Amino acid sequence: MTRFANDAGSLREESLSGFATVHSALVVLDERRHFVRRRLAKQDKVAVVAGGGSGHEPLHIGFVGRGMLDAALPGQIFTAPTPDQIVAAIDAVEAGRGVLMVIKNYDGDVMNFAMASETVRSPLMSVLVDDDVSIERATGRRGVAGTIVVEKIVGAAAEQGLDLAGLKALGDRVNSRTRTMGVALRPCAVPATGQPNFTLGPDEMEMGVGLHGEAGRRRMPRGSADAIATHLAGAVLAELQPEPGEEALLLVNGFGGTPLVELYVMVNSIRQSLERAGVRPTRYLAGSYATSLDMAGCSLTVAMLDQDLRGLWDAPVETPALRW
Amino acid sequence: MTRFANDAGSLREESLSGFATVHSALVVLDERRHFVRRRLAKQDKVAVVAGGGSGHEPLHIGFVGRGMLDAALPGQIFTAPTPDQIVAAIDAVEAGRGVLMVIKNYDGDVMNFAMASETVRSPLMSVLVDDDVSIERATGRRGVAGTIVVEKIVGAAAEQGLDLAGLKALGDRVNSRTRTMGVALRPCAVPATGQPNFTLGPDEMEMGVGLHGEAGRRRMPRGSADAIATHLAGAVLAELQPEPGEEALLLVNGFGGTPLVELYVMVNSIRQSLERAGVRPTRYLAGSYATSLDMAGCSLTVAMLDQDLRGLWDAPVETPALRW
Repeated sequence: MTRFANDAGSLREESLSGFATVHSALVVLDERRHFVRRRLAKQDKVAVVAGGGSGHEPLHIGFVGRGMLDAALPGQIFTAPTPDQIVAAIDAVEAGRGVLMVIKNYDGDVMNFAMASETVRSPLMSVLVDDDVSIERATGRRGVAGTIVVEKIVGAAAEQGLDLAGLKALGDRVNSRTRTMGVALRPCAVPATGQPNFTLGPDEMEMGVGLHGEAGRRRMPRGSADAIATHLAGAVLAELQPEPGEEALLLVNGFGGTPLVELYVMVNSIRQSLERAGVRPTRYLAGSYATSLDMAGCSLTVAMLDQDLRGLWDAPVETPALRW
Repeated sequence: MTRFANDAGSLREESLSGFATVHSALVVLDERRHFVRRRLAKQDKVAVVAGGGSGHEPLHIGFVGRGMLDAALPGQIFTAPTPDQIVAAIDAVEAGRGVLMVIKNYDGDVMNFAMASETVRSPLMSVLVDDDVSIERATGRRGVAGTIVVEKIVGAAAEQGLDLAGLKALGDRVNSRTRTMGVALRPCAVPATGQPNFTLGPDEMEMGVGLHGEAGRRRMPRGSADAIATHLAGAVLAELQPEPGEEALLLVNGFGGTPLVELYVMVNSIRQSLERAGVRPTRYLAGSYATSLDMAGCSLTVAMLDQDLRGLWDAPVETPALRW
């Protein structure tokens, strides 16, 4: 196991304690470690909360702060947060105008957020993110790195005072304009078992991999950065069907085991692919933001922008992982 | 090779292009790709420049911007920048008050910066960073992640108007109060060869590893996060000899293949080790800031603070990798 850990059972708790220590100026960890909330709460706004399994850091805890999330609820590694956690976080951050929940489309998350909703009295709405174009399951597409774009944009609008129904509509609109596909070069190992969650031959890659190393579209021979970029961009743009010259945000997200020097190579290759396809990237984000423990690989997210969405993306944000 | 690349020979150039695209609001890439400089240059200040091999990103290019570096000069992967590059960068950013060069103590870097110095007319001084306590070579200790602390603090002082001699003295003082030791759990492979730069058994770790995967103090059996923390903290504090209750900055740096969730576990374990030793961490930084391609592992840097140094650390910074 190539991992810094004491005991798999306490990894989540120890990691959250370390996180809260490093970022104590911006966030507060709930005493029972159920959730992370922003240190300087703002009253009279819709609270925006998001959650999901741990092991994807900085998603979601790193996006708590001014202009993005009011609280994040980390489950155990690759496991949905419990309804208890969700209720505790909502009760802690509700500030009189209701709560918007951002949920990645995984069965466990959807079920537990629904169960929590039944016991909360505050007005509640949710945005279900399903940006992963790789595969269509019975329960729809998966929610992956595009969640960050949704969280940033609805977070900015909430900070500016938009109401709950407006935020729900905005989040759905961003989700519908945001598409992602990922590729893995090496699997991760889940701490509880210590075993890789899939196997790849030395010259193979998993195209369309999920955020927990789930199988994607197909196992393929390794390609160059340019070939991978063309494949990812083609899959994403086939769904988005952009107009020629349309403006886009490009997010190249590392899965945790791929260094920045390689992610920038992918940015360079993908930018060229998008421009060849007539898309005009005007905003960029590159780094390991929605990870799968130490899986090697990356995903491409393209979000089609307009003036409103660009303005909300550019609005100030002050969180552990995004700050401008 | 678990890597996103087109050709090993163009990896540096493609990665720099991607970097400059993502961060075009903050930095400018020289046309010949010799160096990265801040977009909004400030006149009438000492220019601070740093350089070294690529493959350590965000070090140094990610620290170019207001309050930190005026230029960074990335060599080929794990290779010192050429004297040409260094001269070009210095000529581009010198603004009338001289240039401070921050150099990590590696033979190639030291030699090439010295050669460049001979052909530059501007007043020049340098700070040689040698924070790695792991091993003492004939040419002294290596410079590793502590370089970030030196760059941040001298960068802030330069922005505030400190003169060249003052910056040199400040940089030397920070370096003397900053110590680091690293540990690798899995090697990286250098792109040109595609081969791991060392081998580790499944239950081994390399204690005291260098930033290019150089051998450290010794090969040891894998330990728990707590055991590793105790070992790293012990080695660093043995050199620093802090007073009881003395204030410190704690930097937990990932080597590129270790995810944030594990780095936070290490923060938690190391904080406890330091506190047991009577050190009082008041500032924290955790993330993959000085990487070795995709090596798995981390380093601990402890920098002893005082009121002046804490103030300079806290001063505003606006760079791709650090921003507050």
